[in-house]
Amino acid sequence: MAEDLPSSRKVYLEEDGLRVPMREIALSGGQSPVRVYDTTGPQGYDPRQGLPKLRAPWTARRVGRGDQNLSQMSCARHGEITEEMRFVAVRENLAPAFVRDEVAAGRAIIPANIRHPELEPMAIGRSFLVKINANIGNSALSSSVEEEVDKLQWATRWGADAVMDLSTGPNIHETRERIIRNAAVPIGTVPIYQCLEKVGGQIEDLSIDVFLETIIEQAEQGVDYFTIHAGLLLRHVPLTASRVAGIVSRGGSIMAKWCLCHQQENFLYTEFERICEVAKKYDIAFSLGDGLRPGCLADANDQAQFSELETLGELTKIAWQHDVQVMIEGPGHVPVHRIKENMERQLAACHGAPFYTLGPVVTDIAPGYDHITSAIGATLIGWYGTAMLCYVTPKEHLGLPNRDDVKAGVIAYKIAAHAADLAKGHPGARTRDDAMARARFDFRWQDQFALGLDPPTARAFHDETLPDASAKESHFCSMCGPAFCAMRITQDVREQASRVPRRDCPLKPDSP
Amino acid sequence: MAEDLPSSRKVYLEEDGLRVPMREIALSGGQSPVRVYDTTGPQGYDPRQGLPKLRAPWTARRVGRGDQNLSQMSCARHGEITEEMRFVAVRENLAPAFVRDEVAAGRAIIPANIRHPELEPMAIGRSFLVKINANIGNSALSSSVEEEVDKLQWATRWGADAVMDLSTGPNIHETRERIIRNAAVPIGTVPIYQCLEKVGGQIEDLSIDVFLETIIEQAEQGVDYFTIHAGLLLRHVPLTASRVAGIVSRGGSIMAKWCLCHQQENFLYTEFERICEVAKKYDIAFSLGDGLRPGCLADANDQAQFSELETLGELTKIAWQHDVQVMIEGPGHVPVHRIKENMERQLAACHGAPFYTLGPVVTDIAPGYDHITSAIGATLIGWYGTAMLCYVTPKEHLGLPNRDDVKAGVIAYKIAAHAADLAKGHPGARTRDDAMARARFDFRWQDQFALGLDPPTARAFHDETLPDASAKESHFCSMCGPAFCAMRITQDVREQASRVPRRDCPLKPDSP
Repeated sequence: MAEDLPSSRKVYLEEDGLRVPMREIALSGGQSPVRVYDTTGPQGYDPRQGLPKLRAPWTARRVGRGDQNLSQMSCARHGEITEEMRFVAVRENLAPAFVRDEVAAGRAIIPANIRHPELEPMAIGRSFLVKINANIGNSALSSSVEEEVDKLQWATRWGADAVMDLSTGPNIHETRERIIRNAAVPIGTVPIYQCLEKVGGQIEDLSIDVFLETIIEQAEQGVDYFTIHAGLLLRHVPLTASRVAGIVSRGGSIMAKWCLCHQQENFLYTEFERICEVAKKYDIAFSLGDGLRPGCLADANDQAQFSELETLGELTKIAWQHDVQVMIEGPGHVPVHRIKENMERQLAACHGAPFYTLGPVVTDIAPGYDHITSAIGATLIGWYGTAMLCYVTPKEHLGLPNRDDVKAGVIAYKIAAHAADLAKGHPGARTRDDAMARARFDFRWQDQFALGLDPPTARAFHDETLPDASAKESHFCSMCGPAFCAMRITQDVREQASRVPRRDCPLKPDSP
Repeated sequence: MAEDLPSSRKVYLEEDGLRVPMREIALSGGQSPVRVYDTTGPQGYDPRQGLPKLRAPWTARRVGRGDQNLSQMSCARHGEITEEMRFVAVRENLAPAFVRDEVAAGRAIIPANIRHPELEPMAIGRSFLVKINANIGNSALSSSVEEEVDKLQWATRWGADAVMDLSTGPNIHETRERIIRNAAVPIGTVPIYQCLEKVGGQIEDLSIDVFLETIIEQAEQGVDYFTIHAGLLLRHVPLTASRVAGIVSRGGSIMAKWCLCHQQENFLYTEFERICEVAKKYDIAFSLGDGLRPGCLADANDQAQFSELETLGELTKIAWQHDVQVMIEGPGHVPVHRIKENMERQLAACHGAPFYTLGPVVTDIAPGYDHITSAIGATLIGWYGTAMLCYVTPKEHLGLPNRDDVKAGVIAYKIAAHAADLAKGHPGARTRDDAMARARFDFRWQDQFALGLDPPTARAFHDETLPDASAKESHFCSMCGPAFCAMRITQDVREQASRVPRRDCPLKPDSP
């Protein structure tokens, strides 16, 4: 980690018994260090052992007192400020009571399964920093358990706030176990994938019993949030018939096929309260899936999508009756001018529950660059109020992301999330930008690298044109060269401007 | 070019004597081909000979009839529809009279120096497709003439609509000559750079005489548009004193230093009409430079920036009195929520002249990724009405772009420009997106690659997980694998939905 994040050290904000991690970036030139939100988690532990169990005592006490409902929402509604809420408050520099109230109102969630003691709690909500989710997971076609754990650590090193394990292949249980034991960030899953494995891929054999058995298995492992496609109803399926891209959500297509097969209503919808009963025992948050999200611009904001959204709003109220935390999944593929409508309708339909979107991608013509096409849409929808952005990697629509793709996706989404925080005027959001600007003006190259989202890449790019170590001290750069440096000239200009005007010119350019 | 743009061939739309190039992408599965705007220019010519002189007869006739003012604006205002306007009309599927009226009103420009006969005319204006500009050019520190010509061809292959030669090093004249002779796109420069070379880097020795001599030299070579920092006034300089990043425009810092040196007004401003006299003889468009654009978020939308913008509006009117075409340069570094104000103020201050912005970058914390931070801002400002977007490469703030950086910058900006065209509801803008969506739904992988902005990259990504040629025919992809493919299931769902409901389930999954 040291070489990836130079001049950085982990510091802990101590507050009555809590130790909340931050990353402190040391600067030169007498500048005070900059502290940034830290998602890297405890370092140097053997993946086979897993991380320390930070939350064990907190959850033990809640379990000990015999609460029937262990969710953060239940505690909040009973006026309790949990350790998780206090941890989040310190992490985001907010009042603990404010965190509690946002959770109680359903405007924010703290995904934190009581079986996931390794978690460093974080909040997802409109009044908090915009978060990003990275998807990992192996498929029938590739990758190993070790690779997935490595992807988890790699994704969080670069700033992923949450990670979904979308494994569909073999070792699905073992892969998940190893990921959770090594995760300081919340882990989400799409349980229907494992259910389908259990019924040998026969969609028509899926049932609520297989589903409940599967979510209990995953709940025991410590999964923090479940994507559940309970809002896709039998009557919605025909609405997709005229679409260009049909149904592009895996879970959505599975449930649509089940509904048609049996000519029955989606069992995730009809048996939703039984699912809530499981969730509340572990404090698992729901990520209500948008199985009918548009898969191309032509299908954006259509009746199928918004009909399902209405149902998600209905399910949100039911989950809240059980004090189960909820966020709502959103698109997808949406042109720039139609993004705002998605946020407005979600707010109206889902009673203020946090929105969690996949991009959206704003054009379909750039396969290989969908981390960019979607970071554009993600920035906009984040600005409009989306609480968490699910990353898209350059491999989207083409293949499974490898390590480099995971990093590219995370960095693109850190840019989107931060740009949204700046646009929302989040307090202190600009501190790091301003430190970078000063480092540029002062030609403090090492500080510029250290303050960036990806120091090794920034340094490597600088080395390409000016490899000498001395260039890292030089008061110009390769873009202009010595004679043309705007910033150097500006410094001369400032000196001169501060003087009394005189006839002769005191500004002789330095020799290159 | 063939391997970079597979299944593509150049076709020509013939219209009374004009042959306007388009790129036609052939598709499989009985789908009709898709035609896209083509910037690649004539292929297969020896760079030492240069391209054919398409416009020679057009300009010869105008020169022959002894016009005093040869600008497109002058012709338009006299009601003439030039070949250049007709070429643009065919290229963008618009009425020639509409093109003429936009040029006459100053809402659009066609940069087309009469000494640049190799040019395939294009228009920059709010009612046209959003264009992108790529900057190339060597500096004192690197690169050769051949490299720059190669960068020009490389940039236009991937879709650059215009190219600026920002060379500051040696061979500045020869480099420019070779670039223009091989350019089917308009070429822009910042003449003050060469002026500074001529006075040995002594800013205080710059004068209007050196400047006029230099722009005539460049005009004779065929430069199509000049960036001129005539709006930076002596009284503006103190407004930058309190800035975090000061003046970051090279030309701006040079003129600011000159003004302070001499305690005199910017000679580009005081002698502006003499510059117009040169421009009108060759039909060179002005790109009025924003020498005081913000260089970081902290300096965005400040008094220095907007004071200069007011002066640019004043200069626009003067240029228009000479029938000289004008566009206005814009920022820079601006947070998302403050971008719209830039567009609104430019429209108000500059009487509808086209806006041409550099990004804007929406956060300062991602050196190495400023093609992404700026593509986000560029998409927004393009949507709001900016006519041309100046690309930013991953090397911005760090070094000089190489071939890969040029491509990365162009692709990111093609995404931004196209996303803006879609958001503006530009007629036909979605055709290519819809063709891609259909190709995805039909699993026509080769068509997906061919329809993309970067086919080789898309194919390489697909090969990484599914290298077999057979996979290019397969009805699933590596993201889900055979058993989970949402789109395949959707096709089953559609079949089923079209049938009468029955008790038994007709949807047995295919064997993987």
